[in-house]
Amino acid sequence: MQQFIEFANQLVDSSAGVIRKYFRNLDKIETKSDASPVTIADREAESVLRNIIKSQYPEHGIHGEEFGIENPDAEYQWIIDPIDGTISFMSGRPTFGTMIGLLQNGTPILGIIDQPINHERWIAAKGEGLIFNGKKASVRKCKNLKSATISTTAPEYYNSHGLAKLHKLRDESAHILYGGDCYLYALVACGQLDIALDSGLKPHDFLPIIPIIKEAGGQITDWQGNELDKNSKGDVIVSGDERVHQEAISIIK
Amino acid sequence: MQQFIEFANQLVDSSAGVIRKYFRNLDKIETKSDASPVTIADREAESVLRNIIKSQYPEHGIHGEEFGIENPDAEYQWIIDPIDGTISFMSGRPTFGTMIGLLQNGTPILGIIDQPINHERWIAAKGEGLIFNGKKASVRKCKNLKSATISTTAPEYYNSHGLAKLHKLRDESAHILYGGDCYLYALVACGQLDIALDSGLKPHDFLPIIPIIKEAGGQITDWQGNELDKNSKGDVIVSGDERVHQEAISIIK
Repeated sequence: MQQFIEFANQLVDSSAGVIRKYFRNLDKIETKSDASPVTIADREAESVLRNIIKSQYPEHGIHGEEFGIENPDAEYQWIIDPIDGTISFMSGRPTFGTMIGLLQNGTPILGIIDQPINHERWIAAKGEGLIFNGKKASVRKCKNLKSATISTTAPEYYNSHGLAKLHKLRDESAHILYGGDCYLYALVACGQLDIALDSGLKPHDFLPIIPIIKEAGGQITDWQGNELDKNSKGDVIVSGDERVHQEAISIIK
Repeated sequence: MQQFIEFANQLVDSSAGVIRKYFRNLDKIETKSDASPVTIADREAESVLRNIIKSQYPEHGIHGEEFGIENPDAEYQWIIDPIDGTISFMSGRPTFGTMIGLLQNGTPILGIIDQPINHERWIAAKGEGLIFNGKKASVRKCKNLKSATISTTAPEYYNSHGLAKLHKLRDESAHILYGGDCYLYALVACGQLDIALDSGLKPHDFLPIIPIIKEAGGQITDWQGNELDKNSKGDVIVSGDERVHQEAISIIK
């Protein structure tokens, strides 16, 4: 496992260089094709990640949004998402993140969220705890939902049914924070936020988060309270406190 | 004016030290009274700012949320808001800001937005341009509303009438970014975002922004397209591009 941790750190060190080059510089990119400047940055970062994985572990699988799937039947599968939080990235707000996950026979065993502009990194491998910027970190307790701060990326990702549940949850909690994509989940993991939830996430959005939240001592399930796997529908909720998680589930299930 | 610019920089250097001490450390604050840890951080930073202003310019007026108004009839009035974006701050997300404005006979002549964690500072004095992290910065042009990225803090700050307008504006633009308070206005000023709007802002939320947006070449008005002053209702919209501002106003007025 230690070798995978070191390797995953190298991976995001490399993609961070690409992303920093493009951050707040998108207006200087010439777009020859119909690809947007953000897509160009995303693709270049994904290529860098793929090349490093292929040269170190040619037998491993790779799943990325821009360039598809390689070795889909391998024991180890890398999930890569260079820029999670595209609208934040293209608006110059450093609350996007690079997400990388490693699955072994379908089970997430390692996850990284890296914020390359603020130089913040959350990394967790199964059984090794969550490391935030080089130090062990964990979720915080929360007395009850009434005192919790909840968070979500944007109401636009919810259908009307889901939005009604989000509003109910908001009405039963203390505060709601909007915007942030993977950064919100990272803040729950290191004990700064109580709950993060979103609707319609893709597997590459939530699989890397699973080890991060679990190793930090938190809860991560779908809105029914079920464990997530690669076939989950993508309605995800994450909490630092187990009782508060159950309180929230009873509202949104 | 140069003396006020230097002094304003000193002010936020001092409050930044207080804020950094509390950021992501709120759980370590003992609350003896019924004040929350955030309120304690806010008050300490406001006290620091007030003491520096009073010792340098004892004849100037000061307006702060925690400790009220001093010298309300003075020619020069300082508007101070140590932590704009309280929920971001208490959730450990570095998209809050310290806002300071200086009015002369009621006209905003200087504004600062400082992000003490990311070490980002936007400062503008009348006639001197916008300085972002030590360099001149300005808004960006935008072809039309259809291609614009708009942004707002949270739908909860809108009444139902205002929310319908926000949704109409969202439907006519390319993207919407949530969360950020003063940070969103700062991103419009330095050419990263096209539009930021909010409903129900207080004068200390928008007066410091006026010189920042104007000196950056942008537009700042109420939702009817009128100039803002200390008596404005607080429905504020800011744009980088003048034509796009007019397009947006025609939808939300």
